[in-house]
Amino acid sequence: MAHIDLGVDETLFPGINGPMRFRPETAQPLNELAEVLLRQGPHPLTAGERELIAAYVSGLNECNFCCSSHSAFAAAQLPEGMPLVDQVRADLDKAAVSAKLRALLRIAGAVQQDGRKVTAELVAAARAEGATDLEIHDTVLIAAAFCMYNRYVDGLATLAPADPDRYAQAAQRIVNEGYHA
Amino acid sequence: MAHIDLGVDETLFPGINGPMRFRPETAQPLNELAEVLLRQGPHPLTAGERELIAAYVSGLNECNFCCSSHSAFAAAQLPEGMPLVDQVRADLDKAAVSAKLRALLRIAGAVQQDGRKVTAELVAAARAEGATDLEIHDTVLIAAAFCMYNRYVDGLATLAPADPDRYAQAAQRIVNEGYHA
Repeated sequence: MAHIDLGVDETLFPGINGPMRFRPETAQPLNELAEVLLRQGPHPLTAGERELIAAYVSGLNECNFCCSSHSAFAAAQLPEGMPLVDQVRADLDKAAVSAKLRALLRIAGAVQQDGRKVTAELVAAARAEGATDLEIHDTVLIAAAFCMYNRYVDGLATLAPADPDRYAQAAQRIVNEGYHA
Repeated sequence: MAHIDLGVDETLFPGINGPMRFRPETAQPLNELAEVLLRQGPHPLTAGERELIAAYVSGLNECNFCCSSHSAFAAAQLPEGMPLVDQVRADLDKAAVSAKLRALLRIAGAVQQDGRKVTAELVAAARAEGATDLEIHDTVLIAAAFCMYNRYVDGLATLAPADPDRYAQAAQRIVNEGYHA
């Protein structure tokens, strides 16, 4: 049970959905940020690739709800589906992603620890694989934003459903309607 | 020098200001979130108290730009000014804050480490001092949000001016015009 009375049935509104119903004034910019970072285009990174960064960081933060959600959202939008998400989360060095995406995921992993862990070397390595300033900027901000969403969800002790179907259903909603819905 | 070309003179647009000019699409929800969390009222916590939570978390994350900024913003809006901000940052247990605010700051400190560090005991302690669900929610989200802003600012290696006057000037702008300006 969540630390505060969210005013909803948590089995119907699990994870971040409860706090967003409790406080719509903050839900609005939180959803807008997710929409711009993860879905708005045109963008050099696909929505699936951006969701993969979100899933990877949420996994590093061990936030079950966010990691399950964004893994499902990435899988629904990547041609390789959940096997690639699982590979990245299990062993980034060996996962079958492009060299550019691997370098960006390494930057995201550094951000998850501490912003100051993003070294000039990590940035140069991404740039050498073709990453642009926009891709580096958005990778840093996606990783930083999930250090927020993850803490928001876990800091209020919200419910994370165990059933994978719940996350797959949510993925269809996000793919079709986005974060504003 | 920042990791990417922000397209601005960083001495004029230090810290988060450069990335916000570089990417106005994400600056909008980032500013809106700060405005709601730190300034919008009516609210049971004053703007000074909410800025104090932001400064405290930014100090724990050792983010110079954000800590200097939000310490100045808190000092400008708290009757006790910078001495109280310094006390809280130096020794929360002995700082001259209300028992409720101390309990909320302890929750914020837990969020800074990991959302899962917010225990039922920390929440019960805040509640025993009169904290409401809204205050607990907003404390968790302010702390979580600064784990994002801090990583955004440091992950891009932005400039943090050394001159305290720069932050005091920024404080006057925030107090008078808010985060949307």
